[in-house]
Amino acid sequence: MKVSVEQVAALLLKTDNILILTHDHPDGDTLGSGFALCRGLCSLGKKAAVKCGDRIPESYAFMWQGLPAQDFEPNFIVAVDIADAVLLGRDFEETYKEIIDLSIDHHGSNNLEAKYILLQSEAAAVAEIIYDVLCAMNIKIDAAVADCIYTGLSTDTGCFRYSNTTARSHSLASVLIKAGARTSEINQTFFETKSRVYAALERLALDSLKMYFNDMCAVMTITQEMFRISGATDSDCDRISALPRQIEGVKVGVTLRETKDGSFKVSIRTNGPVDAALIASKMGGGGHPKAAGCRLDGPLSSALEELLKNVAEEII
Amino acid sequence: MKVSVEQVAALLLKTDNILILTHDHPDGDTLGSGFALCRGLCSLGKKAAVKCGDRIPESYAFMWQGLPAQDFEPNFIVAVDIADAVLLGRDFEETYKEIIDLSIDHHGSNNLEAKYILLQSEAAAVAEIIYDVLCAMNIKIDAAVADCIYTGLSTDTGCFRYSNTTARSHSLASVLIKAGARTSEINQTFFETKSRVYAALERLALDSLKMYFNDMCAVMTITQEMFRISGATDSDCDRISALPRQIEGVKVGVTLRETKDGSFKVSIRTNGPVDAALIASKMGGGGHPKAAGCRLDGPLSSALEELLKNVAEEII
Repeated sequence: MKVSVEQVAALLLKTDNILILTHDHPDGDTLGSGFALCRGLCSLGKKAAVKCGDRIPESYAFMWQGLPAQDFEPNFIVAVDIADAVLLGRDFEETYKEIIDLSIDHHGSNNLEAKYILLQSEAAAVAEIIYDVLCAMNIKIDAAVADCIYTGLSTDTGCFRYSNTTARSHSLASVLIKAGARTSEINQTFFETKSRVYAALERLALDSLKMYFNDMCAVMTITQEMFRISGATDSDCDRISALPRQIEGVKVGVTLRETKDGSFKVSIRTNGPVDAALIASKMGGGGHPKAAGCRLDGPLSSALEELLKNVAEEII
Repeated sequence: MKVSVEQVAALLLKTDNILILTHDHPDGDTLGSGFALCRGLCSLGKKAAVKCGDRIPESYAFMWQGLPAQDFEPNFIVAVDIADAVLLGRDFEETYKEIIDLSIDHHGSNNLEAKYILLQSEAAAVAEIIYDVLCAMNIKIDAAVADCIYTGLSTDTGCFRYSNTTARSHSLASVLIKAGARTSEINQTFFETKSRVYAALERLALDSLKMYFNDMCAVMTITQEMFRISGATDSDCDRISALPRQIEGVKVGVTLRETKDGSFKVSIRTNGPVDAALIASKMGGGGHPKAAGCRLDGPLSSALEELLKNVAEEII
């Protein structure tokens, strides 16, 4: 059943032992939303914890700094920023997909089964919704919570660059800075620092760039070989996926990442009216209108053929 | 004499035929501030015009779209975002440096001679100050003015990434979006689009990257040869200067751009406590604590030696 921010606040206030789930291959918004909610609930004396089916990169460690490790049998399970059960990750999908109490999300395509659903597709980040939930619970936004929410907000908007950024996104950022968010350090970490291995991967990946359909589609391929040479890992790829779309005149920018089993993770970013989620959905994936993803079987030649066929239908 | 926002508003309200000067090698803040002020003054029925000693890149054309060409003998001359007379550019320096009525700026190092000076070094962009001046004059911020101010604000803060971004910067962005600023298109133009020639220059420049002082200093060199191969020009270099500082662990990132006469334009960007303006000032330049510049004579070997000597004093 669909619920409002106020109803979610009431639900959370009357429960305890709350487990918060984030999606696999976790990003700033799922983690920032999860840890902001967890910190808020803990500040009320409740037991709460965040779990992720995947390893969480060290760059997010500030989010759980000072949080007590809590062991409890969950009474209430919340999914944040999880549009589909498959995004819980292999192990977690089996365990949790049928027992989620509350789903808080901003993906229009959300089809996660949950008792209660708070879905705001106009929110730039789930972190915006979490801020409202915390306020509705009368929880004080301290600097640590502000850091988590700012991280979700800034990473999901490309630091206020992407077209999903609204007046609300900026007014919230202003409030978070006043609450003590360390925006300068967070931006430095997530936007202004390239690790040596990332910089090496980026140059290899740019060398693979190929243009199609009168230069309206740019495709970059990252092979396992490139991961080996650069020392980078799959988690270094979030930012790299933005590059093909940045080239002048490109309507569809695609990054193909070879996985260890020889299949490809496909990241689709679009400019203008082309719908990335629609292209991804034709290949069994999904996402947002300007940023979506799917998986394709290898080898590269057949993955590319399948991809270009589906891009062609939307771009030409 | 130093003046307040209200005093500037009163001065401008009682004058007419206002010439607004921007700095050479013009950027989003000097142009956005200039054209926002010009549009505001024109909306009151006054004659006003913006002049720049340099060519203005086509990407800023939206700023003067629909503005009438006005020919008049100036009664009042305003300099926006110009910290030093030399930044007026060769021809304009002679003509204007001794007859500027009002200087509106945010550089702590400002030493421009002007009858009236409105200096707010805490402002992330001069565009923030211009917004206040327009409001003090009771000028309605329409969508075209909002576009100009947003461009100044976003380009001078690296789209809200840099440490100069404040709660005020974000709350102003929120107001500008409500006033109709086309933030999505502006961000696309200035942050999310790489021209083919820029992308080519970027890869050549990255190949030149060298590290010094235990990898705390990264120096990138752009030669005239690289401009020839890529087809890029000096005006494509604003964004490229951000790259050396982005590498993990780098405290001082430097870009040396060879000019046609064989000298070098030096752009210095710093992380942490290292003062870029101090380093630049030792070589006859200036700027902000985290972003500054100067010029050095060639050949490259002697320019590099001079640069590294001055960086060493601050970094070690």
